Amino acid sequence: MRKILLLIILSTGFSAIAQESDSLFIRRIADDILANGKAYENLRILCKTVGARLAGSPGMLKAEDWGVKTLKEMGADKVWLQAVQVPHWTRGGSDEASISYTDGQGKKVTCKLDVLALGKSLGSGPKGVRGSLMLVHDFDELEKRKDEVKGKIVVYDNAFNPRYVNTGEAYGESGVYRRTGPSRAAKYGAIGVMIRSLSESVDNNPHTGSTAYDSTQQKIPCAAMGLKDSDLITRLFKEGIKVTGYLKTSGAFLPDATGHNVIGELTGSEFPDQYITVGGHLDSWDVNEGANDDGTGCVQAIEVLKAMKSLGYKPKHTIRVVLFANEENGLRGARKYAEEGQAKNEKHVFGLESDNGGFTPRGFEFVMAADKVQKIRELWLPLLKPYGVYDFLEGSAGADVMPLNRTMQTPVAELRPDSQRYFDLHHARNDVFENVHKRELELGAVNMAALIYLVDKYGL
Amino acid sequence: MRKILLLIILSTGFSAIAQESDSLFIRRIADDILANGKAYENLRILCKTVGARLAGSPGMLKAEDWGVKTLKEMGADKVWLQAVQVPHWTRGGSDEASISYTDGQGKKVTCKLDVLALGKSLGSGPKGVRGSLMLVHDFDELEKRKDEVKGKIVVYDNAFNPRYVNTGEAYGESGVYRRTGPSRAAKYGAIGVMIRSLSESVDNNPHTGSTAYDSTQQKIPCAAMGLKDSDLITRLFKEGIKVTGYLKTSGAFLPDATGHNVIGELTGSEFPDQYITVGGHLDSWDVNEGANDDGTGCVQAIEVLKAMKSLGYKPKHTIRVVLFANEENGLRGARKYAEEGQAKNEKHVFGLESDNGGFTPRGFEFVMAADKVQKIRELWLPLLKPYGVYDFLEGSAGADVMPLNRTMQTPVAELRPDSQRYFDLHHARNDVFENVHKRELELGAVNMAALIYLVDKYGL
Repeated sequence: MRKILLLIILSTGFSAIAQESDSLFIRRIADDILANGKAYENLRILCKTVGARLAGSPGMLKAEDWGVKTLKEMGADKVWLQAVQVPHWTRGGSDEASISYTDGQGKKVTCKLDVLALGKSLGSGPKGVRGSLMLVHDFDELEKRKDEVKGKIVVYDNAFNPRYVNTGEAYGESGVYRRTGPSRAAKYGAIGVMIRSLSESVDNNPHTGSTAYDSTQQKIPCAAMGLKDSDLITRLFKEGIKVTGYLKTSGAFLPDATGHNVIGELTGSEFPDQYITVGGHLDSWDVNEGANDDGTGCVQAIEVLKAMKSLGYKPKHTIRVVLFANEENGLRGARKYAEEGQAKNEKHVFGLESDNGGFTPRGFEFVMAADKVQKIRELWLPLLKPYGVYDFLEGSAGADVMPLNRTMQTPVAELRPDSQRYFDLHHARNDVFENVHKRELELGAVNMAALIYLVDKYGL
Repeated sequence: MRKILLLIILSTGFSAIAQESDSLFIRRIADDILANGKAYENLRILCKTVGARLAGSPGMLKAEDWGVKTLKEMGADKVWLQAVQVPHWTRGGSDEASISYTDGQGKKVTCKLDVLALGKSLGSGPKGVRGSLMLVHDFDELEKRKDEVKGKIVVYDNAFNPRYVNTGEAYGESGVYRRTGPSRAAKYGAIGVMIRSLSESVDNNPHTGSTAYDSTQQKIPCAAMGLKDSDLITRLFKEGIKVTGYLKTSGAFLPDATGHNVIGELTGSEFPDQYITVGGHLDSWDVNEGANDDGTGCVQAIEVLKAMKSLGYKPKHTIRVVLFANEENGLRGARKYAEEGQAKNEKHVFGLESDNGGFTPRGFEFVMAADKVQKIRELWLPLLKPYGVYDFLEGSAGADVMPLNRTMQTPVAELRPDSQRYFDLHHARNDVFENVHKRELELGAVNMAALIYLVDKYGL
């Protein structure tokens, strides 16, 4: 018993000393970022001078230039571009939709809908599609009523489940209608699909995002509509009113283009050939400034490098800030980065991404052995709590670092900010700089820098 | 050893059963509020049909009507008004300020400032005051340079310290310039005072709030200016440019008015004469809709009652929702409530207020014995974690429930939402309904309802 007690005292004694010096250094990181941070101004420049930057678009190239320039300015030892072929989907014009019906007073009503074609969807042709609307709540209902689908425009009004505290779970559940809804309706002869946007916002902004056609089915036009419009349609059907619809979209694929992962490094002092990756994705959808998706992740990752540089911290491992190409509609940048790492037999220690919006930080989620997560939960989480990170979870990680895990079993993670506001603007027109909060963005960067510092110092 | 083990198993066994039933009930509370909540719509009505409601103003009376009506609609067994004499300060007109200086090119510049007179301050008279500006960073500098003050308009540019993660700490530190800055400068002959607003916002909105004149000094006019204007003045002084200023304010006190605490009750089934208070304050400043300060606290408190009613929960103790009068510039409603409770020898079990904005919840802070906080931290905090509350802190509580603690030693607490956004709009024109997030507001109410449920069931 006495021996055990002694061991406890010794071990907590040692760890207390380490914890104190780490705690002080993390306080310095926080002071630097909160008082002298560049993340917010860097984001303003990206959003306001580059703006939308979908893979293959002219904005993509402008964003890459911004990334190179910014990484150099923030003090990277080395900045380079990793070329990758990316898809080049284009919206092709403004999307149009309307519904027509006869109201209770016998009056004919035509009502415009605010829609955005789904990413990767093909256009309807210049005349659009016209037909009766068929409203289904979910795939069960679609299957039951499959004989009614032919020649119709199918509307999925599957709504976010508000009971989830983490809105990501609602997105996970309803997201399937965006991804597979069009092809599942096409299978039974639908001529078009409109979905209720994947959001729980109080406005009527439509939210785009990739769909995934089943190659064996007709590639019918499809779009997301705002929640107020979706509510209207749901109400009309509840009242037994017959509704016809019109949908015109112009999506098309142009030939693949050459894009780049933009990479900035701080060279490791002890293990220059061992890499810690921290990143976000540089591409955005075409309808917004990609502020929270994922400008914030990019500038937070850059801020990690900037803080280390400002504080004169010499990392043991090479810290790589990676601004990934083409997350939204291809993930080709992320795959390229992992494939090339594997081909060169690089040793990747850790990969971290921020791609859940620049909101007030709550935690990190890891993909690595449970005992390792438990170990750092005990040792490191107390160091981050003063900065708002209370959870080290297990489960998923940023889409752009997952390929590192799949190809080389690299432990990977993602920042988990508060989730309440993200799907208000995710893939919608209002994902603009003004909807990012300076201090929330900075606090995310503080916690990311602290985690990267701890991984660099102690390994995983 | 075996005995201890048995005890542990037994106690955790019992507690596990209780925890499971509590966990299920709290899930029901959350489902009700997140899926069928009325807090957001109640807040919209308060903000958009009543709006500003400073003590003594016509808005105060309209807000009391709203409170009575809303509490009845949400199912209170009994709604009553507790009369209290409140101060009636009025802004008296639009506040004006400008600065004049000669720029580097010899050009004379006059520049309007966006200012709001401080609450409870007296007007400058219709001509305003004019004089040289004297910039001081803090009281130390004021004291060192006291001989220069006479006849000048003193500007305090003491800024929020961005290093605090909890912005409330920055407010606590800089707030003294608003409260005592005018009289401390008047002591040395200043003719007016302007302060940098108590905020770290990225805009130029001025933030009002009460000042507290020292009755032995001249009551000089005083106002808060926006941060961009404050930055400009600081820069001019850094460049050695002489600046003169103009300030016109019109604040005045009218005779005290009769206001009311609006109280709605769910009568206790076992201890109807023992009270659990949950509230917010109904008054706001005159320049905004009082959305986050403190419409959100009011509708969250009402939501606690509404959820209990919806779920058929019969509280053991009488649950009192109190919408306190006159928090902003007097605290007379809160004092009245506690005094009357004491006079009637009421037994108050607990008092909870939400008055830190309707942002995503993070924790509760308690004023009660440390061992009690520790006990509920162990037993109850795990039940709230799924809904975002991770901290049970000790230290302070809502200003409106503190008198319960002072007069009757009632344990009291406050909701602690994420603090990053609050001082962007606190006491400023932009504290409007649109700056409240529906789900964040609701999650605050979920945690408040859960805490009130646990206190009602188990006591403190």
